[in-house]
Amino acid sequence: MKVGDRHFRTIWLNEDGQSVDIIDQRWLPHDFRVATLASVDQTAVAIRDMWVRGAPLIGVTAAYGMALQTLADPSDEALDAAYELLHETRPTAINLRWALDTMRAHLKALPPEERRAAAYAKAAELADEDVELSRAIGRNGLEVIRRIAETKKPGEPVNILTHCNAGWLATVDYGTATAPIYLAAEAGIPVHVYVDETRPRNQGAYLTAWEMAGHGISHTLIVDNAGGHLMQHGEIDMVIVGTDRTTADGDVCNKIGTYLKALAARDNNVPFYVGLPSPTIDWTVRDGVREIPIEERPGEEVSSVWGRTEGGEIAQVRVSPDLTPARNPAFDVTPARLITGLITERGIAEASPEGIARLFPEKAGRSP
Amino acid sequence: MKVGDRHFRTIWLNEDGQSVDIIDQRWLPHDFRVATLASVDQTAVAIRDMWVRGAPLIGVTAAYGMALQTLADPSDEALDAAYELLHETRPTAINLRWALDTMRAHLKALPPEERRAAAYAKAAELADEDVELSRAIGRNGLEVIRRIAETKKPGEPVNILTHCNAGWLATVDYGTATAPIYLAAEAGIPVHVYVDETRPRNQGAYLTAWEMAGHGISHTLIVDNAGGHLMQHGEIDMVIVGTDRTTADGDVCNKIGTYLKALAARDNNVPFYVGLPSPTIDWTVRDGVREIPIEERPGEEVSSVWGRTEGGEIAQVRVSPDLTPARNPAFDVTPARLITGLITERGIAEASPEGIARLFPEKAGRSP
Repeated sequence: MKVGDRHFRTIWLNEDGQSVDIIDQRWLPHDFRVATLASVDQTAVAIRDMWVRGAPLIGVTAAYGMALQTLADPSDEALDAAYELLHETRPTAINLRWALDTMRAHLKALPPEERRAAAYAKAAELADEDVELSRAIGRNGLEVIRRIAETKKPGEPVNILTHCNAGWLATVDYGTATAPIYLAAEAGIPVHVYVDETRPRNQGAYLTAWEMAGHGISHTLIVDNAGGHLMQHGEIDMVIVGTDRTTADGDVCNKIGTYLKALAARDNNVPFYVGLPSPTIDWTVRDGVREIPIEERPGEEVSSVWGRTEGGEIAQVRVSPDLTPARNPAFDVTPARLITGLITERGIAEASPEGIARLFPEKAGRSP
Repeated sequence: MKVGDRHFRTIWLNEDGQSVDIIDQRWLPHDFRVATLASVDQTAVAIRDMWVRGAPLIGVTAAYGMALQTLADPSDEALDAAYELLHETRPTAINLRWALDTMRAHLKALPPEERRAAAYAKAAELADEDVELSRAIGRNGLEVIRRIAETKKPGEPVNILTHCNAGWLATVDYGTATAPIYLAAEAGIPVHVYVDETRPRNQGAYLTAWEMAGHGISHTLIVDNAGGHLMQHGEIDMVIVGTDRTTADGDVCNKIGTYLKALAARDNNVPFYVGLPSPTIDWTVRDGVREIPIEERPGEEVSSVWGRTEGGEIAQVRVSPDLTPARNPAFDVTPARLITGLITERGIAEASPEGIARLFPEKAGRSP
């Protein structure tokens, strides 16, 4: 999407035709920086340290990481090592494994000397596919927003709550949860977005707010605590979030705190939607709460907050006493029973084994 | 409670016998400062700008504000003006009105020349009563913790989640939600406290964590988003929070985000308790969601976070883009149906009109 006057994706091939450029998202919203990745090691750092984040973008970045590996050594052993290195960076995101599996299978089927060109072509293909997935999710979600808009007085916005960043910054372009919002705005439907701050890493305050401000979409930042109160008072018409992994039964693993918003939505009859490209579905998992491993990140992310001082410097401030330890589970699981619908590229599925299987019969059949 | 080697209350009469000393809580946990209030105007600033906070402490501070007014002018008109000034500082806390009503009625019944001594005596009495209320809540809540401890293996702690600060810093001493915790620790029952950060003002990270660290109570800071996940995985045995106002039907108005934790507790069969002194009950209100006005505070509290830089300086950092507006509702209402019990100074009441009326028949009768 647009950054200033220029259209960007979150990841693209550098002019040298080999290395890979990304938006280094660690500096947003205060600074817009582009970083260049020249090796699989650099790619692993960029994923692990969250220069890029968001399940779809992590997948595409890992795919380019495999391509970078073919520059140095395209052998089976080297590809396996790159796979392992990249796979270990973030344990929860399912797209990461999916993209790595796709790349490895594709490349190993070829003789080593053909792997380099094939790897770049395949990574570019995955990137383009991701954009098309987002657009398709956007078209399907747009109909949900349109139906709510029809119940409103003319000019009254559809109020949409979102958590974390499942925006274009989390994908290659458009976003998953935000694609319907961008398309609704394009279609002239008035929307207002309540942006959850999303502690501890503040992806809402840093990234989603920055996206919305950049596109001129009416929005308001709130703390993660506020959504239930707004729903109690009829100020939210729908919730839409992204997901890092969805189970074959429709449970949704997403940024920590999503589950609390889903509970509040259910308690107040607010529809709760999840925007997801189908590679986010993990067909091997059914019970998300029991089966999905939840990444525990450093407590330091909880004890400290990063931002811009009044003097314009970037600084981190400690909020808690030095003696106080912190825990930092990064995701939670929202049970399918709390979800109104899964907005996929093929349409909106009921969050149930049957609902998902109806849309993806060829995949559901493979389930154990 | 203890601060280092010395026992403090949160408010006490200055050595001069007239002005009033408070812990200026704006600087915790990074700096321990005492401020001296010498007039009703200063008292209003201290309440409005949250040098002191917490419904019980606000009430006692306002009572001392009325006493300070009698120094300058003990007339009916002056008392009425002081009442209005103090009452406007924080619209949600019911104790504020209760303390002001008590003080004004007591003083107006006396001739002006007797009001000064009477005002100081009454304010001191309210402070002592508040301590006794907290201790009584602690004794009643201790039994809840003890029962849970009996279901645990020896040495396994009772894991307690709390939101915001309903600790001794929110009262004159002991706290409301924390009094059972302090008494349990004193009784040798192992407890572990999960402390919600409590954005936007971080009362959990700043104050509750500081209290716990100061008393050597095992605790862990978590973001407000994390509690649901911990409950899903059996890591929380009970939730206990404070309240700013409780309705005659048992709805609980407390710091924004409390409602979300109550929903998660219900969804996971975790008992959800509220520690409250009965002056926190507003007998004139029944439906908390519809009837309690919720204070909207400046968006700046959401856009920025205050803390200590690596260099040891106190600084505020902005987290969101300059173009992004913020909304900041300070409280929410947890419906009675989500509450396991109200731990009062008289015992534990079911959160229902009947349950509350059984414990406070003389008050419930006065209800409209």
